[in-house]
Amino acid sequence: MEHYSAIDTVALNETEDGVIIIDQTLLPGRTKTIELTELEDMYEAISSLRVRGAPAIGVAAAMGLYVLMKRHKSVDPASFRAYMSECSRRLCSSRPTAVNLAWALGRMNRAAAAAFASADKKRSGAPEDIREFLLDTLKKEALAIRDEDIDACRKMGEYGLSLIKNGSGILTHCNAGRLATVRYGTATAPMYLAAEKGLDIHVFCDETRPLLQGARLTAFELSEAGIETTLICDNMASSLMKAGRIDIIFVGTDRVAANGDVANKIGTSGVAILAKHYGIPFYVCAPLSSIDPHTPTGDDIVIEQRKSSEVTDLWYSERMAPDNAHFSVYNPAFDVTDNSLVTGIITPKGILRPPYSDAIAGVL
Amino acid sequence: MEHYSAIDTVALNETEDGVIIIDQTLLPGRTKTIELTELEDMYEAISSLRVRGAPAIGVAAAMGLYVLMKRHKSVDPASFRAYMSECSRRLCSSRPTAVNLAWALGRMNRAAAAAFASADKKRSGAPEDIREFLLDTLKKEALAIRDEDIDACRKMGEYGLSLIKNGSGILTHCNAGRLATVRYGTATAPMYLAAEKGLDIHVFCDETRPLLQGARLTAFELSEAGIETTLICDNMASSLMKAGRIDIIFVGTDRVAANGDVANKIGTSGVAILAKHYGIPFYVCAPLSSIDPHTPTGDDIVIEQRKSSEVTDLWYSERMAPDNAHFSVYNPAFDVTDNSLVTGIITPKGILRPPYSDAIAGVL
Repeated sequence: MEHYSAIDTVALNETEDGVIIIDQTLLPGRTKTIELTELEDMYEAISSLRVRGAPAIGVAAAMGLYVLMKRHKSVDPASFRAYMSECSRRLCSSRPTAVNLAWALGRMNRAAAAAFASADKKRSGAPEDIREFLLDTLKKEALAIRDEDIDACRKMGEYGLSLIKNGSGILTHCNAGRLATVRYGTATAPMYLAAEKGLDIHVFCDETRPLLQGARLTAFELSEAGIETTLICDNMASSLMKAGRIDIIFVGTDRVAANGDVANKIGTSGVAILAKHYGIPFYVCAPLSSIDPHTPTGDDIVIEQRKSSEVTDLWYSERMAPDNAHFSVYNPAFDVTDNSLVTGIITPKGILRPPYSDAIAGVL
Repeated sequence: MEHYSAIDTVALNETEDGVIIIDQTLLPGRTKTIELTELEDMYEAISSLRVRGAPAIGVAAAMGLYVLMKRHKSVDPASFRAYMSECSRRLCSSRPTAVNLAWALGRMNRAAAAAFASADKKRSGAPEDIREFLLDTLKKEALAIRDEDIDACRKMGEYGLSLIKNGSGILTHCNAGRLATVRYGTATAPMYLAAEKGLDIHVFCDETRPLLQGARLTAFELSEAGIETTLICDNMASSLMKAGRIDIIFVGTDRVAANGDVANKIGTSGVAILAKHYGIPFYVCAPLSSIDPHTPTGDDIVIEQRKSSEVTDLWYSERMAPDNAHFSVYNPAFDVTDNSLVTGIITPKGILRPPYSDAIAGVL
């Protein structure tokens, strides 16, 4: 197969009747693409994290819906609508909390509804023609969602690149990488563009306990793309910063509040505090869809508490922590970084600077 | 067997011809004591970390040497000297970099040399009497080393206890616990004394990647002793502090420089920076033997870089990180916490406060 870094994370196959994804559950040990053609395969691929990352899931679901409708051979409009509704519901339930999934499927369904409404005017009205028009519409919408993702990441990459000097040491946390999008990633986009431009950079990846996305995904995708990459345990960042080896930090985000508070993978706020202490710029890369003007501050974001076994049982093949009445585990998935710790928020529309309330209001 | 928390980490058996240790390689899954009677068993127990922690190793070696000489039945003084020298050399090589090991064995040998020099005056001069006098001397010295360790930990515990309010949330990093000493531990001593006194405390333990001493040892020993204990990944401390759940931090130390800079397990400096950011007091518990007036500042401390597989391979049973030419691992064992981040250094002689150069000079 082609080298990993030449493959989009999510793509249509050549005959446009299958969605090709990199099976991320096999990383970093094996790079294998799989082709999804059936509804249940798509459902399973999303629910079991073979494809993960909000933008990538959205694109996979949109492309998946197009492929499923293309493979549904009935020309009866009622059958088309019914099957599209069934597929949308099933795909949407594959990761119930993933906002991008519902958003992408919503776009596909609105595009189809508009196409149905105008199909009579634009085509002969023959069922075959209506079906073809609908499929054209769905394909365009799915590719638009993909292209917008690539474009937003590329733009954040260009803004971020303007902040990187040759020879820079860069730190990142978790995976806001190309594996979470179609191409480039969000926090990794400046790094890929720096590498494309021939800049000499060295990226340090927090392993990101408990689920180790930094070790398994970010360190994998960057080093496989030929970027010098060093893995560290999360608690080693302070030591690296003190040694002068980190010049700039890029992280992704799950949600930016209206005041610029940033929710992201647990540990991000600690990185930001260390960065402030050592005087290192700390940038958040945020597609506009991640900025939520309806969330006033970080305090309004409810943080998911995850199961304790993620912390206690992931090592070796046996439990590596005590198990008794006085013992418990704290395992939040995310934390909130106060806006006072954020140097800038890199969006596809430019780099936002404090005060963030005004800057965010201005860009949405 | 007795409950874990009623057993000293290192002790003589009842007949004083064996050293009893808790086999720490089996924790937290199994609490098992083993009895060491032969030189090679003692060597193996120290080198393979069945007993670990600088103070505990020193006591184990001192008691071990006494037991070996008691089991050595020859009454010939030359044979006694030769075997004591052989045992000392072998035990001392079991952990070459452990300062306490050489220090404890040095004390035992100096005590024996003084006893040899005065044996004629104090006893009949008969070989049996000389042997008995030497064994008495070695036993007293080994028990003195043990008692001084217990006393120093207890004193640090009392000083630390004066800083703890009822209902406090306490954070610690790595294992500076009773398992690293004979009883109480250093950073854990204030916690054990608080529990003894009936204070309601809740201890949060950083798991301490890469080797997970916080999860395997600290969370084990505190929760087994009935103290409410919550395990967190290292990167979760910021989130807990922001939530107001940490009132005070106690950590141990490998070495305190003359200016108060503190070398300790990797990640400690990050905890200190977070504490400063959130306004939480950060205390270091240091036996006087850990304070090194010959090291001017933390910059003079060389940090051990450890093998990368500790970071990449400890999970599941397979490697969990990439393996290619562009990939590397940063794995320092320790870091240095700047004295400006340290609220106080708790010693057996009291709590040192800034400016530390004067305070340290005054206590040594």
